[in-house]
Amino acid sequence: MSNANQQFISFLGKKIKAEREKLGLTQEGLGKKLKMHRTYVGMVERGEKNISVVSLRRFAEALGLTLRDIIDF
Amino acid sequence: MSNANQQFISFLGKKIKAEREKLGLTQEGLGKKLKMHRTYVGMVERGEKNISVVSLRRFAEALGLTLRDIIDF
Repeated sequence: MSNANQQFISFLGKKIKAEREKLGLTQEGLGKKLKMHRTYVGMVERGEKNISVVSLRRFAEALGLTLRDIIDF
Repeated sequence: MSNANQQFISFLGKKIKAEREKLGLTQEGLGKKLKMHRTYVGMVERGEKNISVVSLRRFAEALGLTLRDIIDF
């Protein structure tokens, strides 16, 4: 993956982490809402996963946000 | 995939198609810019593909748009 793309998914992961922490949720708590394992949440937050748009939309919804909010960084 | 998610990727595909046509590009022409095959472009435009965020960003850039523009529908 190019540096620009890697940087992009890293930013996205940081944004997700920040929004999760704003809600006082653990990775496990967010994972439960998403029916995903906390290790997957961790991978996404660390920018280790090129997530699909549908998964990203699910993350946004679980955080009470729109997809637009989540890419707004 | 849930209906809401399927509808979401269908809208996304329609948006990509409309933006491609605005530029007077064929699926093949857009595929060349993206170094992707035109059949992949067709699948994305028909909402048959749950594309990754990095690929979506590449589509947006090839269309002269930002990721925000592309999900704004």
